[in-house]
Amino acid sequence: MNSVNDTIVALATGRGGAIAVIRVSGGEAIAVVDRVFAARSGRALSESGGYTVHLGEVRDGDEIVDEVLVTVFRAPHSYTGEDSAEISCHASPYIENRIVQLLIASGGRAATAGEFTVRAFLAGKLDLAQAEAVADLIAAGGRAQHTLAMGQLRGGVSSALAALRGELTELAALLELELDFGEEEVEFASRERLRELAARIGGELDTLAGSFALGNAIREGVPVAIVGRPNAGKSTLLNALVGDDRAMVSEIAGTTRDRIEERAVIGGVDFRFIDTAGLRATGDLLERMGIERAREAVAKAFLVLLLIDSEDFDEADVAAQIADLGLRSDQRLCVVVNKIDKSLRPGGFSPAMIQVVIPVSAKTGQNLDALREWLAAAVDTSALEAGAAVVSGARHYEALIRAREAIGRVEDGLAAEVSADLLAEEVREVVYHLGTITGVITTDELLGTIFSKFCIGK
Amino acid sequence: MNSVNDTIVALATGRGGAIAVIRVSGGEAIAVVDRVFAARSGRALSESGGYTVHLGEVRDGDEIVDEVLVTVFRAPHSYTGEDSAEISCHASPYIENRIVQLLIASGGRAATAGEFTVRAFLAGKLDLAQAEAVADLIAAGGRAQHTLAMGQLRGGVSSALAALRGELTELAALLELELDFGEEEVEFASRERLRELAARIGGELDTLAGSFALGNAIREGVPVAIVGRPNAGKSTLLNALVGDDRAMVSEIAGTTRDRIEERAVIGGVDFRFIDTAGLRATGDLLERMGIERAREAVAKAFLVLLLIDSEDFDEADVAAQIADLGLRSDQRLCVVVNKIDKSLRPGGFSPAMIQVVIPVSAKTGQNLDALREWLAAAVDTSALEAGAAVVSGARHYEALIRAREAIGRVEDGLAAEVSADLLAEEVREVVYHLGTITGVITTDELLGTIFSKFCIGK
Repeated sequence: MNSVNDTIVALATGRGGAIAVIRVSGGEAIAVVDRVFAARSGRALSESGGYTVHLGEVRDGDEIVDEVLVTVFRAPHSYTGEDSAEISCHASPYIENRIVQLLIASGGRAATAGEFTVRAFLAGKLDLAQAEAVADLIAAGGRAQHTLAMGQLRGGVSSALAALRGELTELAALLELELDFGEEEVEFASRERLRELAARIGGELDTLAGSFALGNAIREGVPVAIVGRPNAGKSTLLNALVGDDRAMVSEIAGTTRDRIEERAVIGGVDFRFIDTAGLRATGDLLERMGIERAREAVAKAFLVLLLIDSEDFDEADVAAQIADLGLRSDQRLCVVVNKIDKSLRPGGFSPAMIQVVIPVSAKTGQNLDALREWLAAAVDTSALEAGAAVVSGARHYEALIRAREAIGRVEDGLAAEVSADLLAEEVREVVYHLGTITGVITTDELLGTIFSKFCIGK
Repeated sequence: MNSVNDTIVALATGRGGAIAVIRVSGGEAIAVVDRVFAARSGRALSESGGYTVHLGEVRDGDEIVDEVLVTVFRAPHSYTGEDSAEISCHASPYIENRIVQLLIASGGRAATAGEFTVRAFLAGKLDLAQAEAVADLIAAGGRAQHTLAMGQLRGGVSSALAALRGELTELAALLELELDFGEEEVEFASRERLRELAARIGGELDTLAGSFALGNAIREGVPVAIVGRPNAGKSTLLNALVGDDRAMVSEIAGTTRDRIEERAVIGGVDFRFIDTAGLRATGDLLERMGIERAREAVAKAFLVLLLIDSEDFDEADVAAQIADLGLRSDQRLCVVVNKIDKSLRPGGFSPAMIQVVIPVSAKTGQNLDALREWLAAAVDTSALEAGAAVVSGARHYEALIRAREAIGRVEDGLAAEVSADLLAEEVREVVYHLGTITGVITTDELLGTIFSKFCIGK
């Protein structure tokens, strides 16, 4: 069984590059590293204080595995709050694996995903919402994602919840008063105040939960499906938007069989562009599978770009293609008329569902900036820029929804003159769900679920 | 213009992971970092000694870009020999880019590929062959590559060349003697000794140059082409050998259009398996392009696996397929009879060109270990394990070949009784070419060519 007393080991840097860093943390961290490390100075790391750096070699018996730098951290002045070491070695997967294996053979254990941050949480260095923000900060690909994660890491969501907790405490105190004195004496004044408070808390929970749609899209990358007939130029558009040759482009219709997803940051927002197979009737099994996936991509998209070859532009046909997409009212569509370098047939076409028609040439790049502007404007990040607490995690959203339901039952109970002890039970439910967000209330299961999404080494 | 006096900045770690490291080196390195870094202690890095670590924040005006650790190195006790700093931040591409941009705005310059190691070379911390070994060490994917690169980094090739230089010095001294005293007096003894020495140097250059075939295959990864008829199971075999689902597998013949290359380490050796399009006559343009690429892959392969569906096994057909491959005598072929889980038709078939026939099931994994053993045995790494100097770089090989040609001209000249001053010219040529390997002799052009192959940040 894994124990919080183990000394854990993991590669903390990505693959590639020139330098790799291996993290070791736990009571025996320094001793474990000393067993495989020969310092140039000849001194053991165990004699060293925190925040010191040591040059030397990692050895496996007589064999020199690598020349490295070791940084020593002493409890509690480390990320985890424990004794820790970071080994900076050459960024070779072979060397990284050898060193990790040597450390494990010398008394360490391979860290599980997020285990370093679990320990930081258990040592009280971060609350749970902040710990989750660490993973988001690392994943942040654009300014909006970074602002979102840094806000949460520095306690934005946590302090909004702390304010709510104050109001819930007041609510609980009023209910207690009612229980102590009986309904007759305090009812009128306190029930009025209770209704006010419950409504305010409900409203604040609505605001926080309502921020999730934006927060989640920004956090995960805003999904944009690129759809259209075969050979409309979908892959070319994807390449033009993301700036490389990821998608295989050819003159033969039906080239894209797999669904290809690429990211690009536009206006500070991270977009996920999903190139799809051309939508047409076909007997080809692989191609039919691709079209099925294209329909799934449309269903999950926040924005949809319907690509039309300007040479084939026909108003009735475009309307039919739009109808075929089956979009929901919360999705936004842009009709992109492509290949205007070849021909341009302007149409006065503007059905209600289309917010905009943008003529472009994906091949020459003509007018693509107009498309980029539309994309950036389709995602409103003003709340984020203003420093509002924006909820981005599905776990947080779910807890907020549960809390909102419980406070709704308090409101209903107040209207129906339900007794104070039953209402107090619902208030405890609200406190419980909000507590799971920052980790005031935790279970092993909850911690396992959260930190399993982290990378190893964090 | 770039100058060696600039302070250079680069991300030194790969993408992904939890931690990233940004390197800064040059006379102003500490001052540049101080401009964007606020230490928790409130003290400037410029007041800090080498090998110290500092916690704080990277700021862009009021905005906190990230919480980081900065390690300070003081000249000459750093990788480059200059004042340097390493900033350890969260491994987010967005944060990495922001910090690099801030450092550049604060007086740094983006490092070119390998520029940190160029500076280490210029500071005399490494010779050129050792510097090149740094890149190889990072790229090492298996034990053989690691042993090869570590041997070179620790001076294996350099000391073999130093020994040669000793012999060349003796050769030059003998020629000088002849020039000083005239041919009559010293000719017999010295010409005999000269012949011996030239022959020995020639032999040693042959040995070093001869080690290149193995060294290069190990360094680059041993190329193995997987060929055969459509649906013989090439992609399935590739997946089974490399252990994931990289290649797209379907029941439809002709699925693989692109050439797919995957690496796997077997018996400590890094192999590059090249999955190719099935070889058949076809009218499909994309598929024909794939077949053309398959033939190129065979031409470049060290080993070739010809895959045959056991149900289609026919002696004459296999012989025809082998003839169609057009292998060279330095290539080794293994006929792999696949799908033995379905049927097995044993044949007494063994033409001279086939070293071995191995029946397997790529799908169930049956007998794949026999194939892995054949692969590992087909690459003889005994010289490497014994610590011999093995040349792995094309640049080194070319210099050795040029040196060998010059020493050959010395041998011919001695036989033809050419005058000592002309021979001395050829000896200088040998010394020159060997000098380019370790960098005793360098030009800006040579340095540019070598270090442009490095990653940025090394």
